[in-house]
Amino acid sequence: MESMVRIGFLKLGNIATSPMVELLLDERAEREDMEVRVVSSGANMGPEQSEKVARDLIALKPDLAFVVSPNASTKGPTSAREILAKAGIPTVVISDGPKKLLDELREKGMGGIIVEADSMIGARREFLDPVEMAIFNADTIKVLSVTGVYNVVCDTIDSLIGQLKANKKPELPLIEISRAMAVEASGLSNPYAKAKAGAAYEMAKRVSNLTTEACFKEKEWEIYTALCAAAHELMRSASVLADEAREIEKYGDNVLRRPHHRDGSVLKKRKLIEKPR
Amino acid sequence: MESMVRIGFLKLGNIATSPMVELLLDERAEREDMEVRVVSSGANMGPEQSEKVARDLIALKPDLAFVVSPNASTKGPTSAREILAKAGIPTVVISDGPKKLLDELREKGMGGIIVEADSMIGARREFLDPVEMAIFNADTIKVLSVTGVYNVVCDTIDSLIGQLKANKKPELPLIEISRAMAVEASGLSNPYAKAKAGAAYEMAKRVSNLTTEACFKEKEWEIYTALCAAAHELMRSASVLADEAREIEKYGDNVLRRPHHRDGSVLKKRKLIEKPR
Amino acid sequence: MESMVRIGFLKLGNIATSPMVELLLDERAEREDMEVRVVSSGANMGPEQSEKVARDLIALKPDLAFVVSPNASTKGPTSAREILAKAGIPTVVISDGPKKLLDELREKGMGGIIVEADSMIGARREFLDPVEMAIFNADTIKVLSVTGVYNVVCDTIDSLIGQLKANKKPELPLIEISRAMAVEASGLSNPYAKAKAGAAYEMAKRVSNLTTEACFKEKEWEIYTALCAAAHELMRSASVLADEAREIEKYGDNVLRRPHHRDGSVLKKRKLIEKPR
Amino acid sequence: MESMVRIGFLKLGNIATSPMVELLLDERAEREDMEVRVVSSGANMGPEQSEKVARDLIALKPDLAFVVSPNASTKGPTSAREILAKAGIPTVVISDGPKKLLDELREKGMGGIIVEADSMIGARREFLDPVEMAIFNADTIKVLSVTGVYNVVCDTIDSLIGQLKANKKPELPLIEISRAMAVEASGLSNPYAKAKAGAAYEMAKRVSNLTTEACFKEKEWEIYTALCAAAHELMRSASVLADEAREIEKYGDNVLRRPHHRDGSVLKKRKLIEKPR
Amino acid sequence: MESMVRIGFLKLGNIATSPMVELLLDERAEREDMEVRVVSSGANMGPEQSEKVARDLIALKPDLAFVVSPNASTKGPTSAREILAKAGIPTVVISDGPKKLLDELREKGMGGIIVEADSMIGARREFLDPVEMAIFNADTIKVLSVTGVYNVVCDTIDSLIGQLKANKKPELPLIEISRAMAVEASGLSNPYAKAKAGAAYEMAKRVSNLTTEACFKEKEWEIYTALCAAAHELMRSASVLADEAREIEKYGDNVLRRPHHRDGSVLKKRKLIEKPR
Amino acid sequence: MESMVRIGFLKLGNIATSPMVELLLDERAEREDMEVRVVSSGANMGPEQSEKVARDLIALKPDLAFVVSPNASTKGPTSAREILAKAGIPTVVISDGPKKLLDELREKGMGGIIVEADSMIGARREFLDPVEMAIFNADTIKVLSVTGVYNVVCDTIDSLIGQLKANKKPELPLIEISRAMAVEASGLSNPYAKAKAGAAYEMAKRVSNLTTEACFKEKEWEIYTALCAAAHELMRSASVLADEAREIEKYGDNVLRRPHHRDGSVLKKRKLIEKPR
Repeated sequence: MESMVRIGFLKLGNIATSPMVELLLDERAEREDMEVRVVSSGANMGPEQSEKVARDLIALKPDLAFVVSPNASTKGPTSAREILAKAGIPTVVISDGPKKLLDELREKGMGGIIVEADSMIGARREFLDPVEMAIFNADTIKVLSVTGVYNVVCDTIDSLIGQLKANKKPELPLIEISRAMAVEASGLSNPYAKAKAGAAYEMAKRVSNLTTEACFKEKEWEIYTALCAAAHELMRSASVLADEAREIEKYGDNVLRRPHHRDGSVLKKRKLIEKPR
Repeated sequence: MESMVRIGFLKLGNIATSPMVELLLDERAEREDMEVRVVSSGANMGPEQSEKVARDLIALKPDLAFVVSPNASTKGPTSAREILAKAGIPTVVISDGPKKLLDELREKGMGGIIVEADSMIGARREFLDPVEMAIFNADTIKVLSVTGVYNVVCDTIDSLIGQLKANKKPELPLIEISRAMAVEASGLSNPYAKAKAGAAYEMAKRVSNLTTEACFKEKEWEIYTALCAAAHELMRSASVLADEAREIEKYGDNVLRRPHHRDGSVLKKRKLIEKPR
Repeated sequence: MESMVRIGFLKLGNIATSPMVELLLDERAEREDMEVRVVSSGANMGPEQSEKVARDLIALKPDLAFVVSPNASTKGPTSAREILAKAGIPTVVISDGPKKLLDELREKGMGGIIVEADSMIGARREFLDPVEMAIFNADTIKVLSVTGVYNVVCDTIDSLIGQLKANKKPELPLIEISRAMAVEASGLSNPYAKAKAGAAYEMAKRVSNLTTEACFKEKEWEIYTALCAAAHELMRSASVLADEAREIEKYGDNVLRRPHHRDGSVLKKRKLIEKPR
Repeated sequence: MESMVRIGFLKLGNIATSPMVELLLDERAEREDMEVRVVSSGANMGPEQSEKVARDLIALKPDLAFVVSPNASTKGPTSAREILAKAGIPTVVISDGPKKLLDELREKGMGGIIVEADSMIGARREFLDPVEMAIFNADTIKVLSVTGVYNVVCDTIDSLIGQLKANKKPELPLIEISRAMAVEASGLSNPYAKAKAGAAYEMAKRVSNLTTEACFKEKEWEIYTALCAAAHELMRSASVLADEAREIEKYGDNVLRRPHHRDGSVLKKRKLIEKPR
Repeated sequence: MESMVRIGFLKLGNIATSPMVELLLDERAEREDMEVRVVSSGANMGPEQSEKVARDLIALKPDLAFVVSPNASTKGPTSAREILAKAGIPTVVISDGPKKLLDELREKGMGGIIVEADSMIGARREFLDPVEMAIFNADTIKVLSVTGVYNVVCDTIDSLIGQLKANKKPELPLIEISRAMAVEASGLSNPYAKAKAGAAYEMAKRVSNLTTEACFKEKEWEIYTALCAAAHELMRSASVLADEAREIEKYGDNVLRRPHHRDGSVLKKRKLIEKPR
Repeated sequence: MESMVRIGFLKLGNIATSPMVELLLDERAEREDMEVRVVSSGANMGPEQSEKVARDLIALKPDLAFVVSPNASTKGPTSAREILAKAGIPTVVISDGPKKLLDELREKGMGGIIVEADSMIGARREFLDPVEMAIFNADTIKVLSVTGVYNVVCDTIDSLIGQLKANKKPELPLIEISRAMAVEASGLSNPYAKAKAGAAYEMAKRVSNLTTEACFKEKEWEIYTALCAAAHELMRSASVLADEAREIEKYGDNVLRRPHHRDGSVLKKRKLIEKPR
């Protein structure tokens, strides 16, 4: 019997890909070909904490590790991935940026998946509280789901798992998920559903223009608070539009579903009342 | 200087409280009074895996541990919490049920938070794929955020942290979050916003009537697939209604925001353009 | 020439099936095979009034009588149906409950149709005025129409009329309309339209959980008023969702229409611009 | 003790005022100052049937009678009201038209309430089936509720009841409900809510332009079927807009509620959580 | 080489057809068979100004002239078209009315296109400011686009251009655009999309009932201001419904597109991803 | 008596500011202090045509001229403004870009208003037909109206008119309308309305990222057609969100209205039923 592949996720801070990423791999908890370990320091992604939890993850002996965090060029995520890599664990970064990091990762033999539409939250004390944070994540999760971003992430990791199961050395991905790539992966069939998904993606991506201005550039609190609010309204609209795109597929009974089989393979179906194959 | 409190989260399988729970405590990653460790086995909540990750969490030496999972009476979560408790770690269950578990937890000196509106997903292979799973979580997160459920969870944990910081033995909570409790905690000010939140809560709670029928009772695949779809439509409607409730508060510029201060205290504000206090 | 069948409706108090029930049988006032008599005491369903109007209906000599009321186990409706039955008129109860009444009706040789989704209104003086009452009825009528509940009611009565026309002793129905039965009868063709109808049905049904609490259990007026409001928001959401289900059918030009023919038979069509057959 | 006033309603055929009219007077079935008797021949409003049920109503001895029907100038309603009037019962017509009938009613000492926005349904066999009929009624009921039409009807009847209770000869009303009169009676407080209600009223009123063309003028079935569909879409939009008007009042916690007291008097309140006075 | 046809537009005051009319002819600025000249006096349509700009347009030597204005029976537009006609330029009026003008135009050898759904704006100082004006135009433009009104206008002018290109004396049109004509020209394929477009058209047309009352009959400022607001809400609802009609076509990937070819011919396509032919 | 100021508009090609710009100045056609002349070559903005119409405008002797066009750095608009300037007419460019043009305009003594949110249309033959073009304009007009862009434009021109009326040499503006500037000018009072307007603005502005890619960079027709569709969906969402922002103001009866007085001054009001002052 082949042994199970063990995938490790190190979560430092939060982007909207983070809370869903390991669940995407095994949405009904049926897979028998792999197992998952997640270690996280919660919202905190300071260097010290990041290093600690990186070591904690090493102790759990993953065959492959993902370091999921915002801004992967900051100290915490950087140290964490280097600790993992030094321990001989194939390591892939999942982050909202920066895109140029991919070059560095390539050089160091690491992988990277840049999720540009997973925009930064409006993290100002005058604006962001636990409820607003959760709502923003909900909206972003909906956008990333429908527009195909999660499909790219999931397929990429599934492919790595396949390589590990085949005892191959995994070819670590260096991907910058773009609108075209995402919408293609979304499997949306109606061209207007695709157009709406594309527009939703564009909105989601532009949220970070507002939030980075709000969080890093603007000093006046009345202005940055208003900017945060505008940014979250933008994500909310993106979420509404993404939802509309999926509704179109429901109206035509064309929703693509790609459930995982117990053995890790991916099935497919379009009509609601049909068996996946 | 007082030492930091370390809160451990053991996540077994997934409910919609799970992906957000530790983030609720420190929404902008600024707190200096506590730190978080999360360990998870992903979607899998089998006994063996659950026990392993429980031990892994013990190794991280939390002052207080939460075991977050669906159906806490199943074997995995049960073993996990007992391992944690035996290790002398004050342990609190967070789950969608069963409610009667609270008695058992009380007897064993453990705590419990039952989140009844955090309904089970439609976990059938003919229906649930990664995208559908993520969308359901997004919808549920929105409902739990707006209707006040997360506020109850967050306040409860914050209170425990406060006790630990004061070097008290924490009084472990035994809470069954009800509609009334949640809506009260939501801080919604407009009475129709509250009414809509109450209705959204009721919908979310009733989702599990459909999903448990679909997942555990119904054998015919055409029927359980349709039931899963109805259940997720119900959650989507709940999400839309919850969103409407929050919009009412925006229309009146009355959104309650309760950001955490760096020192862990909770500030308050209502008008968007005002400082929290 | 065969004589016309005369159907009597005794309406005591109001449920949302009541204002539409006789109209469902002859939506364009063209039928030549039956006639209708309705007698009602309006909102009042006290025993004395109920008995009076029951006698009034007997005077109109219906071949078959329906007693339509909320809670058919209360005194008024009970007396009324017994008076009708004693007069030798085949009698069928139409009510929102209680379900267990069906056993009693069977024993007494009467029929019964329990419409569980026809939930009780939020009948508290602090909440319900004429306008709110009418709006709640409008919302409920929409839900019952689209989700197929009215189809079950109408088909059941049409079948009884058919038996009377054929000079058969009518087999009185003992039906508890369930979600599955209703959605099946709705004739919705798109599976997501069905799912939305199913969810709308579930919401409508759950309204009574809130209204019975508000009207019969809760004593504090601030709380029961808020509960009534939540209940009506729930019905409003159910109405919106039911409407959405029907829109899906319009979008696909698949709305099932089943007009009555002049001779009482039921025709069918799907495309808007086609003749019913 | 003063004796109860008995109000009779003769319902011939159907307009959307008809199913709600007696319920408006006693929305929670608490009034002790009056009682109601309704007699109806269902959808059928042929002369023979109308005369029969008119006599049936006389047998129930109402102190005041309302003849509620579409197009009150047709034979059935005309005969019916004359039979009632001859029997010495003060009689008031409630109908969607024609407006000029009011002159005739005045001359004959009868009353009349013309509800112009209660537009004719799209009664063509290719279009109208029981479900479509019920949906149209639901939409129209919502429009008539929110825009204040029902308030005018209800207040007018309440006033007549008051006169009867005071043993006065009732001054029979001759009213043509207009947009201005309705919106004024609606009690909507926000001027944009009023504007939306006014627009909804206008839409509802214009529905009959389309349906009369569809039902009485147009001979080609493809065209009249399409006209019926357009007419019902117009009423649906009116319903959506009326609903929006009421939502505005909810958003400001300004919904006017005017519940009947047990003694028939009318109370008032605006804030949801306050006692009516 | 055939010379270009030059079409002149004289715009006096504004209706919602006015800002788009010349753009409809050459939506991507590619046509090589004709050119356009527009002269306008802006919102002002007084006689003196109208005559001046009419002469200015003559100086630009159009082969054919359109006088686009509200109420074409007023002095300014009347003088303007007579000046153009006297100069020997074939002249066509485009206006919202009055319809009877068509007879006069026929007699004088002029053409006319009456766009009845292009209803008058709520032009009262208490209501209309630049932003409200632009919003009303946006809503009306959307209605006229989707419901097919612009298609009739565009096809009519294209046909005249075709005649001029063929060196024929143009047969000046005398058209009163009706709902049926517009919806037919809209090319909407789904019958419910057509029904919604028809209802939207009807709403747009009825706006002028309210605005003419508000602007010309009602003297009390509180009343006419409210009427203006109701009128604009009516147009806004028409716009929403028209948009819904077009969405239906998107949902079925059936949007009719009829782009102009460089040579002025009109191509056609339905599926988004197909070439026009 | 002071003589009227005459403002000339030269419209070359189309942006969504163009169809409304002169109407913004005199929304009810009442001003007595200025008059307007518009000359346009329609959609065509080729150099030859542009020069011709520039000369035509000179013939109409405007005191001040605006050249309104897309991309003002192209040949047609460039020649046109230089012809006007050479004729000694103070000339102001209104365009969607490029922003760097402002420097050049400053040097040449001309003015410029860059309206960045007035994004380019999806001008591909496979996508854009007259109806799609008009719909895009309607959506964009709504965004520019509500978000305050038109207010900036209108105020700027009004200020120039004021200078001319005072016989001053006008100080030609050099403005790049930004989100902050627009939202400030919008006069929206609710901070969430402002946030939504800000997000709508951001969406509208980003449309051009998609359309320039679609029109100038992408060669594959399937891809650029899809990009055009995504771009227009983005503008449609922006329009919906802008509309929502204005609705918030209606809900609070706070819509700012700034009608022009007959003498050109600008009045103000907030409540619908109050006089502007």
